[in-house]
Amino acid sequence: MAVLQNHPDRLFPADADTRAIARRLYAQVGALPIVSPHGHTDPAWFATDAAWSNATELLLSPDHYLYRMLYSQGIALDDLGVPHRGGMPATDPRAAWHVFAANQHLFRGTPSRLWLDHVFAEVFGFDVALDRDTADFYFDAIGEALATPAFRPRALYERFGIELLATTEGADDPLAHHAAIRRSGWGGRVVTTYRPDAVIDVEHEGFAAALARFADLTREDVQSWQGYLAAHRARRADFRAAGATATDHGHATAQTANLTSAEAEALFARIVGGRWDAADAELFRAQMLTEMARMSVDDGMVMQIHPGSRRNHNAGLFASHGRDKGADIPVRTDYVNALKPMLDVVGNQCDLSIILFTLDESTYTRELAPLAGHYPCLKLGPAWWFHDSPEGMRRYREMTTETAGFYNTVGFNDDTRAFLSIPARHDMARRIDCGFLARLVAEHRLDEDAAVEVAHDLTYRLVKRAYRIDAAAPVASTASAA
Amino acid sequence: MAVLQNHPDRLFPADADTRAIARRLYAQVGALPIVSPHGHTDPAWFATDAAWSNATELLLSPDHYLYRMLYSQGIALDDLGVPHRGGMPATDPRAAWHVFAANQHLFRGTPSRLWLDHVFAEVFGFDVALDRDTADFYFDAIGEALATPAFRPRALYERFGIELLATTEGADDPLAHHAAIRRSGWGGRVVTTYRPDAVIDVEHEGFAAALARFADLTREDVQSWQGYLAAHRARRADFRAAGATATDHGHATAQTANLTSAEAEALFARIVGGRWDAADAELFRAQMLTEMARMSVDDGMVMQIHPGSRRNHNAGLFASHGRDKGADIPVRTDYVNALKPMLDVVGNQCDLSIILFTLDESTYTRELAPLAGHYPCLKLGPAWWFHDSPEGMRRYREMTTETAGFYNTVGFNDDTRAFLSIPARHDMARRIDCGFLARLVAEHRLDEDAAVEVAHDLTYRLVKRAYRIDAAAPVASTASAA
Amino acid sequence: MAVLQNHPDRLFPADADTRAIARRLYAQVGALPIVSPHGHTDPAWFATDAAWSNATELLLSPDHYLYRMLYSQGIALDDLGVPHRGGMPATDPRAAWHVFAANQHLFRGTPSRLWLDHVFAEVFGFDVALDRDTADFYFDAIGEALATPAFRPRALYERFGIELLATTEGADDPLAHHAAIRRSGWGGRVVTTYRPDAVIDVEHEGFAAALARFADLTREDVQSWQGYLAAHRARRADFRAAGATATDHGHATAQTANLTSAEAEALFARIVGGRWDAADAELFRAQMLTEMARMSVDDGMVMQIHPGSRRNHNAGLFASHGRDKGADIPVRTDYVNALKPMLDVVGNQCDLSIILFTLDESTYTRELAPLAGHYPCLKLGPAWWFHDSPEGMRRYREMTTETAGFYNTVGFNDDTRAFLSIPARHDMARRIDCGFLARLVAEHRLDEDAAVEVAHDLTYRLVKRAYRIDAAAPVASTASAA
Repeated sequence: MAVLQNHPDRLFPADADTRAIARRLYAQVGALPIVSPHGHTDPAWFATDAAWSNATELLLSPDHYLYRMLYSQGIALDDLGVPHRGGMPATDPRAAWHVFAANQHLFRGTPSRLWLDHVFAEVFGFDVALDRDTADFYFDAIGEALATPAFRPRALYERFGIELLATTEGADDPLAHHAAIRRSGWGGRVVTTYRPDAVIDVEHEGFAAALARFADLTREDVQSWQGYLAAHRARRADFRAAGATATDHGHATAQTANLTSAEAEALFARIVGGRWDAADAELFRAQMLTEMARMSVDDGMVMQIHPGSRRNHNAGLFASHGRDKGADIPVRTDYVNALKPMLDVVGNQCDLSIILFTLDESTYTRELAPLAGHYPCLKLGPAWWFHDSPEGMRRYREMTTETAGFYNTVGFNDDTRAFLSIPARHDMARRIDCGFLARLVAEHRLDEDAAVEVAHDLTYRLVKRAYRIDAAAPVASTASAA
Repeated sequence: MAVLQNHPDRLFPADADTRAIARRLYAQVGALPIVSPHGHTDPAWFATDAAWSNATELLLSPDHYLYRMLYSQGIALDDLGVPHRGGMPATDPRAAWHVFAANQHLFRGTPSRLWLDHVFAEVFGFDVALDRDTADFYFDAIGEALATPAFRPRALYERFGIELLATTEGADDPLAHHAAIRRSGWGGRVVTTYRPDAVIDVEHEGFAAALARFADLTREDVQSWQGYLAAHRARRADFRAAGATATDHGHATAQTANLTSAEAEALFARIVGGRWDAADAELFRAQMLTEMARMSVDDGMVMQIHPGSRRNHNAGLFASHGRDKGADIPVRTDYVNALKPMLDVVGNQCDLSIILFTLDESTYTRELAPLAGHYPCLKLGPAWWFHDSPEGMRRYREMTTETAGFYNTVGFNDDTRAFLSIPARHDMARRIDCGFLARLVAEHRLDEDAAVEVAHDLTYRLVKRAYRIDAAAPVASTASAA
Repeated sequence: MAVLQNHPDRLFPADADTRAIARRLYAQVGALPIVSPHGHTDPAWFATDAAWSNATELLLSPDHYLYRMLYSQGIALDDLGVPHRGGMPATDPRAAWHVFAANQHLFRGTPSRLWLDHVFAEVFGFDVALDRDTADFYFDAIGEALATPAFRPRALYERFGIELLATTEGADDPLAHHAAIRRSGWGGRVVTTYRPDAVIDVEHEGFAAALARFADLTREDVQSWQGYLAAHRARRADFRAAGATATDHGHATAQTANLTSAEAEALFARIVGGRWDAADAELFRAQMLTEMARMSVDDGMVMQIHPGSRRNHNAGLFASHGRDKGADIPVRTDYVNALKPMLDVVGNQCDLSIILFTLDESTYTRELAPLAGHYPCLKLGPAWWFHDSPEGMRRYREMTTETAGFYNTVGFNDDTRAFLSIPARHDMARRIDCGFLARLVAEHRLDEDAAVEVAHDLTYRLVKRAYRIDAAAPVASTASAA
């Protein structure tokens, strides 16, 4: 059986002198609390604190990073226990786990490999690698662990040293789990994030239903432009009461608009009246980014823009399995022209924070770093999604720092629904950042004292400042740190 | 005279520990057989096994990597013995060689320099560098060597340890040389590849003539849509009989289409009727990629798509010298939107293999790795053309591995007409891959045992699997390996 | 107080063997004279040789690299002494300097940090770092130094080892300062560069006024197409008489055009007649690049094209502060299609030199290196503006060398109005180039002897050849070198 080991020097640069510096920096920040301001864990876990069932349902079936790779090599999603539109396939979880175990070589060189190894070794204590021969051993041992109190969601939250964890809910979500968490008196700080995409994107298949729930929850006339805007304001307030400090916008593009009130009202009438075309849909999304920015100026919520993913690229898979099944593909993304209408309105607001993400790395040096290095309201989110990886993070620092500096960035986002991998993901970011800083020190481009301060900032301080975390503690929270 | 040496550690990372790992990996794969599934050598060489004439005609005049660099510095193509539309210039080959020798500094830092040094040292045994002073010595020594049996094409094929060599022929090619090779009883495995561009691209200056030959060879009514498709099927079968396992498509863009039969028939009528415009030409190329994919589902041929080169950019040079004279320039290339129509038809076919190449590196992380990391039919071809270089290959691995893994890639392609440089090119790829793997090992991101296995896969196993080489041995071949 | 030190190994690779090679290379070129063929220093400085006033007015208020970063963090430009449309703010220079000093951490990891440290340590002799506590000490010491003869512009020019310094003037500039420099008998070689943007870009807010001055200076009928072209020819001759060897074109895009005379005349009539739209404005800029190229064929002036910056992106800031205030943002830039009309006219002229720059790094491997590696008239300018940085320069070499080689590049441009930073900027380029060459040597891709020659070429010889500096010494100059 192959040994499983997370080497203490993993992800540090190979050069001995640089590695020694990276070790010293990491020693200062490796154990700092985890602040996770953007993610997709299920708040029900923390509301109910129920045990997870088994390795497959916890680690494999919900993780599109894993099953997309297996799918790309001809393995059917059914064989991995991935739910389709009709519900869960009748796949034995153990059998699915065997398929996964037998194909571990596919993950060589990927961040998934490193996250898995961290979860296996650090969270579950394995010292042999997962493969065909150890599949049952793993499946059984994980199942047994999950049945114990120490592996319940709240216990792991505490063990992981999490100071704050943000989930993401739609504008039509009643936030019941967050209310339950607050009522429970538990000390963990699990907050929500306002993500109104489904009531903004008329091309989303769930738009009409989401809009109806949006109306129910707010009792606003969401068929009128002013009522619709009021509903957003009401729900933003609800979300802030549930600890939210931020909104999130996952649009197809970064396009913004700056319509007159009359133009916006006429556009909205076409949208809700079903008389829109694709250009209207795009223009409405664009206008709503500007409206959201205006509301953020008023209510202080941090705004996150995540553009540039072509959702549901695989028509056949979308038909059989629905959205979020590993078939979202990045596209070329423009920011400079797209953001200008919004920036003409709010760009010079120093008390506004808009955090930009990208899946198009060619924009790092060309557009994003120059924009964030100039506009007071703009900050750069960390390397995102496909770029949340050692090479991706390294490129991010190499391509943004010289123009935007470190202080127009906002620390790390794990952006994950894979709760057990959160420590692994933050650890990876800390190691890569320490390695990048170590190179600057080794090349005499930064003093080591300054590098220590920057490492702390990138790990802990910038995220709290950028997401205004201490400024808006959730009402019922007894957060363990801050 | 400057010493010529191919250092045994060349192209390995400089860091001592990483280099030691790279050496160990390379020791395992450096001497593996060469499988060359995509290239442009002349099958006549292996059919006739005739001796090459001299250094200039073998190494300089046909190599656009070399003469484009010299041309960029103001040296006339005539002075390098490069053929123009009227035929060969009346340039003394020795004089051309002198011009080349005197300008070796232009190749510093380029892959051409490394390939040349490999050819000079390893193939011809030189131990002094080529320069103004050694030009005659080189010219004479190469000429003498080429006159010997050991430097005939078949002898070099064997000496180079080639297991399979694919050439590329047009749909209108009678494949006579391949037939001669098979008839000869020689043990080398030289196969063809089906490249139908000239009968698909109505904007190609040779379209009409190629279509006429296509009709002659197939005896199909290529003026009708169904006859035209039948002709493709017939020729694909001919090519398979000549050992082909793959097709190749060098389109201006990656655009695909999914027309109805009626639409396709109407479009084809405009194409062959001369009533087409540029949009029709593009749409026809797009539709034909989908038709080729459908045929690949039927006949099992691997499909290669090489888009994104603006051919014949230099109008003056095209007028005087024709195509393929170093004046093809890459352009920005979209895959995500362009491939969707074809992928809607065949994207989830697990028994189909479509290998994508690019000249636009910004698509590696943004488009190609995410596509190949999801669709079962898609694989990534190696770093291509301008990117077939140490830095280009390194970027390729750094930018594709984390999302697509190693197992959605297909090993190395030399893509060359410079036969003598084939070992040099494969050696470069092996060294760079070993260096990349060594860094992963040194950074504790991959076990060395796994790295050895990956190195073997990248060097030998993936190419055979991706190009279905053992599944389709040419009829008369007595291949030396498999 | 923190120690300020410019480490002798700064910017060299960390690997010990590679660093040792870099040191040896740098030892050969670090002290070579500075040739600065493209920059924006004020010729009045050298004409009058007047003392500068204080640290803020010399180093901070005019430097958009510095105040854009501070502005991005919410610091008002007024507080930094940056002039607005109404003139200089009533900010105490010492107070502005304090704001700057207190925010030095923002520049960590940026080239500004390294340039500043070089200026502080090497030019002014500081050995403690600038921070809140040393702000007054710095302000006073710099002020005292500037009052001494050793810190006058001409003395610093000589101390810096500058062999040639090019400034940039508009087509409507009378070149009085350059005339004064020549009349003065001073031995420094300060030449001008012809930048006609304001009389070519009808969308420039100063177009009409510039055109009027252009007419006055040339006494040509600039309202007629032929008169307008004649005026350009006349001014190009004036500039050559003031030492210019080059023109410079800062267009929004790289678009060129190749209109017939009649088309061009009709277009020009719309431009000067005020009957143009945005497409006309773009077409006129495009046509004028081709006209300038034709004139360069005639008069031998080197042509520089700097496209791809969206000027004045921040509408509010442009209204309050005008242009060149750190709000220019790069955009995606096409060269392959854009340059073709011009290249169809002049592309194969071996006696023409067109130097291309970019703010879009995705074009390095895809477009610029292939173009420069083919067309005799094209050369690549160095990493520009946001990319004039350690990582930017490193990427430039990694992404251009393999296709274009070293000899289609033109050495370094400092492109700065920050005169005191010129040695720092050239030193950074020399160190990065030596580090890049050292890696090639360490990886056995280039002999060290050849690397020494290349280092000399990149530092000194290529710039003189590419900008034809020795071929066109200014009439009255007694240049100290050549």
